[in-house]
Amino acid sequence: MHKKIVLSIIARILLVVSFMMFIPLGWAYYGAGYSVEFFAFVITISLGFLVSIIFRRILPISPDDIEHLNAKDGLAVVGLSWIVLSLFGALPFFLSGSVASFTDAIFETASGFTTTGATIITNIEGLPLGLLFWRSLTHWLGGMGIIVLYLALLPILGQGAFRLYKAEAPGPTAERVQPRVKETAKALWGVYFTLSLLETLLLKVGGLSWFDSLCHTFGTMATGGFSTRTESIGAFSPYVQWVVIVFMFLAGTNFILHYQALKGKAKAFLRSEEFRWYFLILLSLIAVTTFVLKMQVDATIPVRTAAFQVVSIMTTTGYVTADFDLWPNVLRIALVVAMFIGGCAGSTGGGIKVIRIFITIKVAIKSIVHAIFPNSVIPIKVDEDPVPPKIVLGVLSYVVIFIFLFVFGALALAAIDGCDFATASSASIASLANIGPGLGMVGATQSYAWFSLPSKWILTFLMLAGRLELYSILILFLPATWRK
Amino acid sequence: MHKKIVLSIIARILLVVSFMMFIPLGWAYYGAGYSVEFFAFVITISLGFLVSIIFRRILPISPDDIEHLNAKDGLAVVGLSWIVLSLFGALPFFLSGSVASFTDAIFETASGFTTTGATIITNIEGLPLGLLFWRSLTHWLGGMGIIVLYLALLPILGQGAFRLYKAEAPGPTAERVQPRVKETAKALWGVYFTLSLLETLLLKVGGLSWFDSLCHTFGTMATGGFSTRTESIGAFSPYVQWVVIVFMFLAGTNFILHYQALKGKAKAFLRSEEFRWYFLILLSLIAVTTFVLKMQVDATIPVRTAAFQVVSIMTTTGYVTADFDLWPNVLRIALVVAMFIGGCAGSTGGGIKVIRIFITIKVAIKSIVHAIFPNSVIPIKVDEDPVPPKIVLGVLSYVVIFIFLFVFGALALAAIDGCDFATASSASIASLANIGPGLGMVGATQSYAWFSLPSKWILTFLMLAGRLELYSILILFLPATWRK
Repeated sequence: MHKKIVLSIIARILLVVSFMMFIPLGWAYYGAGYSVEFFAFVITISLGFLVSIIFRRILPISPDDIEHLNAKDGLAVVGLSWIVLSLFGALPFFLSGSVASFTDAIFETASGFTTTGATIITNIEGLPLGLLFWRSLTHWLGGMGIIVLYLALLPILGQGAFRLYKAEAPGPTAERVQPRVKETAKALWGVYFTLSLLETLLLKVGGLSWFDSLCHTFGTMATGGFSTRTESIGAFSPYVQWVVIVFMFLAGTNFILHYQALKGKAKAFLRSEEFRWYFLILLSLIAVTTFVLKMQVDATIPVRTAAFQVVSIMTTTGYVTADFDLWPNVLRIALVVAMFIGGCAGSTGGGIKVIRIFITIKVAIKSIVHAIFPNSVIPIKVDEDPVPPKIVLGVLSYVVIFIFLFVFGALALAAIDGCDFATASSASIASLANIGPGLGMVGATQSYAWFSLPSKWILTFLMLAGRLELYSILILFLPATWRK
Repeated sequence: MHKKIVLSIIARILLVVSFMMFIPLGWAYYGAGYSVEFFAFVITISLGFLVSIIFRRILPISPDDIEHLNAKDGLAVVGLSWIVLSLFGALPFFLSGSVASFTDAIFETASGFTTTGATIITNIEGLPLGLLFWRSLTHWLGGMGIIVLYLALLPILGQGAFRLYKAEAPGPTAERVQPRVKETAKALWGVYFTLSLLETLLLKVGGLSWFDSLCHTFGTMATGGFSTRTESIGAFSPYVQWVVIVFMFLAGTNFILHYQALKGKAKAFLRSEEFRWYFLILLSLIAVTTFVLKMQVDATIPVRTAAFQVVSIMTTTGYVTADFDLWPNVLRIALVVAMFIGGCAGSTGGGIKVIRIFITIKVAIKSIVHAIFPNSVIPIKVDEDPVPPKIVLGVLSYVVIFIFLFVFGALALAAIDGCDFATASSASIASLANIGPGLGMVGATQSYAWFSLPSKWILTFLMLAGRLELYSILILFLPATWRK
């Protein structure tokens, strides 16, 4: 690893985030003037500026240095900067005294940046405005990617930019944008910003305050799930719930498709095989959920309730309007399965991603056909194009590592805190796939506050590994990463 | 599919099993003379003879026909003959009136042949001797494979024999025996018979009756789990429990290694990478289980209790000496994870198989290293030999299909019978991996009797798919299988 360059880039990213913190500082002032919270932000911002400026000074880098970043450096920048930002972003929570334990503050911040939305805060309405806003803003920054934002804002080009982009962008299709990383980063953030603006206005029209509109837009567009209310979106009108359903759905879609649609090529949606699968899985799940709820629970439950929860869970947002832990077992299990699937590649959603799921299904079908016709040659195709065997193997490896991490998480939580079967498994996948609420003790009406410290560190690790597509975090544990 | 040849071979296999039924007929007579049970066996045997002789007459086949069996035929023979035998073997239970529902009788028989050991019988001591013996004998016949027995006994050679062997033998290593299938089949059954004889004698020495010694030997060596007692092996002395632990361990090992050891090459065990993993996983699990039990439950619990349950579950036997559903959650979850792993290839154990698990782990590690060094070339090796990419992909496909079937099973059980999280998942994996007892409503002290009919059919399907390595059963659902 080129430690000097890696550190220097991380310092620059820290500077960007320190700047962003002026917005919650404004809300803190608006909420309570020169309060403890206000000064907590001032101290954090000053510290951010100080550290990043010192590091930029003692570690000057040229564009040529960045040009020569290798794959290892790219992953290390992403993995380490997300860890640094989770520590840095935790400071306002801790310094203001609103969150007493530093581990809890880090958990909450990592949960924010990774767009998980799992919270250790039990009295959400008791949190001051600035911190509530910062909490939601971490979602928004993490959703489209802080490194992607950095690429869009600052002049980094060539191989280095691609390495960074690839290490943070969700899904196995990063290669496609190689020659135009900067343009892609700009386009993605442009679309993200536009859709966010639109949702904010629609929520405002629905009667929410500007503050609530912004915070819930951040939570929706990033598929995060932090709310300003303990009741989550259940506190708002059916109109607001439908707006959130639509925008969660859009946030779980590949943003490249939105970009193409905004440029007039709306057919791009239909042409994308991943989008068709995503849409069909959601639609079938909503149909089944509505049917089961109406048959087994209460015939008056509206389609909206089913649609909201299915879209919220599968896009890995985690907002709730109903306590799905009280639903029939088949729906509870189906929702946990949906957690594994997640959103599309290039979306802000987590999970394994729809494209990896259907490539895996195609491989499975191929191997069954192969058992009957051993000499058959069946290429695996996506959007009519054959996928190289190397990519197919990469996808299967990803799925397998994802499942290993899930099992590790469930076992660790059961070992440390004695969690039961449903709690241990759902907390593990809800963190790894960046959802938030799960079943049992981490159900929709519960929080993550009761976990022991070691469990919270493991959950934080799972959130980061899941959001950063495993490799950026996992390689930090290999000695080879730290060698020159 | 060459329907004529396939049907004709199935008829011949039916004849072999009909002959085998003379043994429980003898026990039936010994137990209660010319009882209802006795005549149930007489009718079944007569029917078996009649049907198989008619089919042999109207569908004569030459050795040359068998020589030309293709992969599809091989899988179809295995898949269909196991289904036919599950129906045929259910007759004594049903005709004697001991099991009132025919679905239940089929469930019990399929559970026997597939060496699952899940039972719908709630009063085991109430079952007459002949049926108790037949129940255990289905384990023994299914354990090493009925088709493998057929290959060992009757003259079938060449490609056809290999196709049949490959379709039934557990694990991805069938190719190695291609030129000498008949010898392998004989060697495997020879070792199986020898070890069974040894265990029977050791159990007899331990104070069990000949009847109990035989039945529990069948249950052990086949990694089945049917007992003649409701209390399972918990009803017997520590000596008997240790004997069963050792033989479950041997039954979960590749029988080719036993064969080599019997021929004086005892080092074969150490040279086998799969055996080393199998041994190490078991040892670690026993250590952890002992530690947790002593710390969190009761310091006087002996190592034997931990060793018994770990070996019983991971080899997919399913015998019990303690109600592990009452153990701490981390152990309950760890045991479910062990269910997925299962025994070695070429053993009588079920599950994914140790060799597939460690190949999958190697692929995962390789992909992480590959993320740091994109140009690295790391061959996946087993026993120092590189594994061809095609086999690696086959192994991953197998793991993926296995997990899909597990998820399908859990969802189906929750949908049909409203099973909770732990019951639905553990019943699904306990059937698919051929274990028997799971957690919750299918825990060690429970039975499968309470499931609805559709659930029992789904569980039967999972047991067959799991025992026959998925493909033989799955291809029966494809139209292409039924074409000429």
